[in-house]
Amino acid sequence: MKYDHDNNHPVLVLNEEQSWELLAHTSHGRVATSVAGDVDIVPVNYGVHKGKLFLRTAPGNKLASMTINDKVAFEADGILADEAWSVVVHGSAEVLEHEADIQEARESGVSPWVPTQKDFWIRIHVRSISGRHFQLGEQPEVGQ
Amino acid sequence: MKYDHDNNHPVLVLNEEQSWELLAHTSHGRVATSVAGDVDIVPVNYGVHKGKLFLRTAPGNKLASMTINDKVAFEADGILADEAWSVVVHGSAEVLEHEADIQEARESGVSPWVPTQKDFWIRIHVRSISGRHFQLGEQPEVGQ
Repeated sequence: MKYDHDNNHPVLVLNEEQSWELLAHTSHGRVATSVAGDVDIVPVNYGVHKGKLFLRTAPGNKLASMTINDKVAFEADGILADEAWSVVVHGSAEVLEHEADIQEARESGVSPWVPTQKDFWIRIHVRSISGRHFQLGEQPEVGQ
Repeated sequence: MKYDHDNNHPVLVLNEEQSWELLAHTSHGRVATSVAGDVDIVPVNYGVHKGKLFLRTAPGNKLASMTINDKVAFEADGILADEAWSVVVHGSAEVLEHEADIQEARESGVSPWVPTQKDFWIRIHVRSISGRHFQLGEQPEVGQ
């Protein structure tokens, strides 16, 4: 295992470099948005390019909520038999309108889930990134 | 494939029964919360019992934000080679304090990711549930 858990503690806090590396090797995540206290969450495919995240999406509620409140949270994770990881990003979402920006988005390699016509590109400017690696196992019960 | 996509349309909207069935056969999801426009998202293990979702979690920010704004969104998904699904729930979160409620939570079979001491139980009352099934494939490009 490439992650060294001190004293076999089941949760290891990852540094930014480790977190970015995990994001770069995954393509599926979820974006959470909020408008007036109403929270939404949608699965997305994403790409990473020069410290930013890029999404390609169809028009709809997800896009609308990002234009009202551009603060978003993003999560990607991976689960194996005996280990798991999760990376969470906080940032702001920007709908891309200029061809140069969209070209940068294309270079992130993001591809959508399904073969429908999806023409909106979104760039997430990352304010913070954090990651955790978990050694999976049984939960000790209290008083049992 | 058990999901019948009309005219091979890549996205199939699932009904509530199908959505619940997918949730019941998965144990890992993400909860999105929001306080004063700041959105957060955290990976969780969950259980389903009698039309409610149950989470078991350590105290911390996630819990704190749920007590300030109990509106949450929850997502679980699954990705295979040529198909994927995603189910999204909107509802309200309640921290469980009474033993009878916690007993119901235990019956949901939720188990946490890691063997740390986690003593908070959360019940999500589901306001809406929606699901989609995707046939994966290449994105048609516009004008190329």
